[in-house]
Amino acid sequence: MAAGGRQNRKPAQNTHAADGKSIQYGPLEHWIGFNLRMAQAASFQAFSRRSKDIGLRPGRFATLTLIGQNPGISQTALSRANGRDKSTLTPLIADLVRQRLVRRVREVNDRRSYGLTLTPAGEKMLAQLTECARQHEEELDGIVGRRERAQFLAALKKLADALA
Amino acid sequence: MAAGGRQNRKPAQNTHAADGKSIQYGPLEHWIGFNLRMAQAASFQAFSRRSKDIGLRPGRFATLTLIGQNPGISQTALSRANGRDKSTLTPLIADLVRQRLVRRVREVNDRRSYGLTLTPAGEKMLAQLTECARQHEEELDGIVGRRERAQFLAALKKLADALA
Repeated sequence: MAAGGRQNRKPAQNTHAADGKSIQYGPLEHWIGFNLRMAQAASFQAFSRRSKDIGLRPGRFATLTLIGQNPGISQTALSRANGRDKSTLTPLIADLVRQRLVRRVREVNDRRSYGLTLTPAGEKMLAQLTECARQHEEELDGIVGRRERAQFLAALKKLADALA
Repeated sequence: MAAGGRQNRKPAQNTHAADGKSIQYGPLEHWIGFNLRMAQAASFQAFSRRSKDIGLRPGRFATLTLIGQNPGISQTALSRANGRDKSTLTPLIADLVRQRLVRRVREVNDRRSYGLTLTPAGEKMLAQLTECARQHEEELDGIVGRRERAQFLAALKKLADALA
């Protein structure tokens, strides 16, 4: 999703149309699916605002982290770990290689396949994005609340695991 | 996000790389931002599988619902209510109009602006997608658990509202 202009980031609830009428959400209001998307979109946009200055699209942070944590990872394993299908991941990786943030390396035991690793520039970019992400996480923690954080995280993990 | 092949929908946690090594998530493992995205991606893909037969992209369900609930809604109000910026919403609306699911109607008091309304075909499509979404919501409810549902939903709404 592209980052929106500030005027498009009004709360999902109690939103008023331009003519002053309240927006009706119908069944969406109490549905997990819609509110999960709205929370994810808001979180992504907030992270985008923070990371804009670094000049990297925030959707690449998780990819860089997973390559940094797992040097030589295959694109298949990365796609699985990242919740992205290969058709989304392939151009993303190609772009990171073009920007010299990621390098393709040959497997020693299987010369047909290759793994992915960070370049020094990639490591540096990842360090900067990680700092952005840490600040973003602090903001999210503050909103969810310390006491409810563990339960909230557990519910998110349950959803990702059960629907996989 | 495009729907992935089934092989790409493994759980985020305890994922194993092709070579049998466990994937390291580093700080992502306990971060709300990453787990929010993984849960949203999994939920979207599960809904996609359900709605595939109807021949409509599931990302359009919320848009159709909001137009159906708010006949004559402006594109600006829709973008705000939907968590989508205008650059994403404009081609989506154009496509719905082309498919004759949505109609543009002129404002009586302001002939320069127009509102959006569903066609009979749009109403029918929305009814089918709503039934899909109801089944999907039941699945999500079952995963999150009845007792924790209200708190989980409240946390999602808090995030969307606070980050807006």
